[in-house]
Amino acid sequence: MRDVAIIGIGQTKIGEHWDTDLRHLALEAILAAMTDAGVTQADALYVGNMLSGELTGQEHLGALIADFAGLRGIEAFKIEAACAAGAAALRMGYLAVASELMDIVIVVGVEKMTDVSGPDATAALAMGADSDHEVAQGLSFVAINALLMRRYMHEYGYTVQDFAPFAINAHRNGMNNPYAMFHFPVTAERFARARMICDPVSLLDSSPLCDGAAAVVLASADAARSFGAVPVRIAASAVGTDAVALHDQNDPLMLEGAALSTHRAYKQAGVGPEDIDLFELHDAFSIMAALSLEAAGFADRGKGLQLALEGEIDIQGRVPVSTMGGLKARGHPVGATGVYQAVEVVQQLRGLAGVNQVPNARLGMAQNIGGSGATVATHILERMAD
Amino acid sequence: MRDVAIIGIGQTKIGEHWDTDLRHLALEAILAAMTDAGVTQADALYVGNMLSGELTGQEHLGALIADFAGLRGIEAFKIEAACAAGAAALRMGYLAVASELMDIVIVVGVEKMTDVSGPDATAALAMGADSDHEVAQGLSFVAINALLMRRYMHEYGYTVQDFAPFAINAHRNGMNNPYAMFHFPVTAERFARARMICDPVSLLDSSPLCDGAAAVVLASADAARSFGAVPVRIAASAVGTDAVALHDQNDPLMLEGAALSTHRAYKQAGVGPEDIDLFELHDAFSIMAALSLEAAGFADRGKGLQLALEGEIDIQGRVPVSTMGGLKARGHPVGATGVYQAVEVVQQLRGLAGVNQVPNARLGMAQNIGGSGATVATHILERMAD
Repeated sequence: MRDVAIIGIGQTKIGEHWDTDLRHLALEAILAAMTDAGVTQADALYVGNMLSGELTGQEHLGALIADFAGLRGIEAFKIEAACAAGAAALRMGYLAVASELMDIVIVVGVEKMTDVSGPDATAALAMGADSDHEVAQGLSFVAINALLMRRYMHEYGYTVQDFAPFAINAHRNGMNNPYAMFHFPVTAERFARARMICDPVSLLDSSPLCDGAAAVVLASADAARSFGAVPVRIAASAVGTDAVALHDQNDPLMLEGAALSTHRAYKQAGVGPEDIDLFELHDAFSIMAALSLEAAGFADRGKGLQLALEGEIDIQGRVPVSTMGGLKARGHPVGATGVYQAVEVVQQLRGLAGVNQVPNARLGMAQNIGGSGATVATHILERMAD
Repeated sequence: MRDVAIIGIGQTKIGEHWDTDLRHLALEAILAAMTDAGVTQADALYVGNMLSGELTGQEHLGALIADFAGLRGIEAFKIEAACAAGAAALRMGYLAVASELMDIVIVVGVEKMTDVSGPDATAALAMGADSDHEVAQGLSFVAINALLMRRYMHEYGYTVQDFAPFAINAHRNGMNNPYAMFHFPVTAERFARARMICDPVSLLDSSPLCDGAAAVVLASADAARSFGAVPVRIAASAVGTDAVALHDQNDPLMLEGAALSTHRAYKQAGVGPEDIDLFELHDAFSIMAALSLEAAGFADRGKGLQLALEGEIDIQGRVPVSTMGGLKARGHPVGATGVYQAVEVVQQLRGLAGVNQVPNARLGMAQNIGGSGATVATHILERMAD
């Protein structure tokens, strides 16, 4: 195998894009990434997407988007892994370039969620849970996360209000990200007044239904310097899985898939949590952020929330998370999220994150979670020395 | 990169399996392939599937099936490329082993299509066409193939009855395949009387809606001999794409994606059509079989049907196709088909195809097509020397 680098990034603003469609969103991100990389062709396109069939009536996105982006003829597929589809597609692109069979690969994550009603989108999202054994009982992902949050509070003695720092941090950072969906601050008072949507999960504990696309261009690390942008090496790419149904997992409050995925990534990169300068985690719900911090080794069990309460997740903290707004404020177009995370880590490692810049960021980690922890894809990115 | 081999195969009988579900079908194929290979673990599972969300309400098949097969924790994703999803997943498995990052990879193709009505399944399948510009006009894949068949007859002077040899050959071969859906012969007379479903496409020009799963186990070619079964090397793995909408393609009667895909595969393997001992082509409709023979270089344009009329597609002919029944008689559980094709080529190369054995088969090609030629994945398999 050979080392792989990200040589270009692109993203669309996230929002309710009622004036455009899935293929145009993907196109915008791909062209931005290709322009950034300075390439006009590619050997393959891998599309991360979860629900294009259910929400827009369109499968077969690989060939469709490749052709629409002017790349007719190249290898192209869609990769699905629930909300981890974006990072799964990145993983596939990584394998393709690492294999030496592909030199330039484009990975795009895209999701168009707002062409159906909110309840219909929520029902479609539940297809990432176990349809026979969870959905049949009426569980949605909001409900699953409410169960987890309630249990976490019960086990470790936290209150609902203790979760506020995740939303406060994400929204503060999102205000400075032009691509973020939300540009308003959240205070502890506002969090306390937020509408309860599935007790104890409030609207400000939840990521929004939205549309967006993000893309990266991959090349071998050796070739990366010959392209325009500052190259970022993929120091690790790793995946772990767990049971899909929450009740089949060994311990609902321990994300074993995330622990596996992170452990594999640390091992490949030869680093530990103490070496990570920022962590784009999967804060689809506040409870997921807390559990991720624990599974990835940044906090002991039950202490992930403590880390947030102590301000250690802020830009200036020990482990900055959601540095461009996270799933909560930047938005969570599900199949696109994993690629947005990678794009944002690259922004940080290039030193181009503006007022959200993590000082001297050299090593950044992105972790994308599908379902209630059943698929977890982790990438560790490293700024290549000048 | 390193060479990759298929060290195990497994498949379920294809049919209308109302007594079981998607995960059990996948499990049966995976366990059969693992037993055949003599492995009890794997590094990754790639699932080829097109319509699990639309037809069974379940996405996130990677983690779901990995766990159900006793492989909790390993990397696992779903790959979608319309009806080429199976071979696309095989392609991904090939890249993973070739990259040297994975040693044992399982690829399973699975589709459960009969839990909804025929019209609903047909509508779901149309998501592999261009939803905005074809499906919105009422086109299904049956209709698209009827347009292609009519045009082919017009251009080259064939009659409807001239297409009979494809169905006759497929059903003759399917009768000897215990995993095939149909076990009845088709004669020219029966073909002539077949119910017209979308003129000029009759029921006997069409593959059935059905359920099934097939799996292969991959390892490096170097390691392959240490496992139980006769190893088969993947001499080539290649993909080509074209526009999804028929009206966007340069020439509807020339499968440019198939030509690209086959050309790339021939180049990688260092062979030409004259070296191929059997060709598992994508006979979802008779017209697709004729066009595939032409795009892959076995016949000049307009002469693919002639090849069939001359008996050259039979087991004893110049280019045996559908040797175990093809999509027509073995069946076409869409996302599984590409893996069934690979399994059957391996059966032939191992010399275990029974009365359907192609004499001295050394090099076999499988070609899986998504949409009306928009994604085409081609694999050339080679019996490894003793």
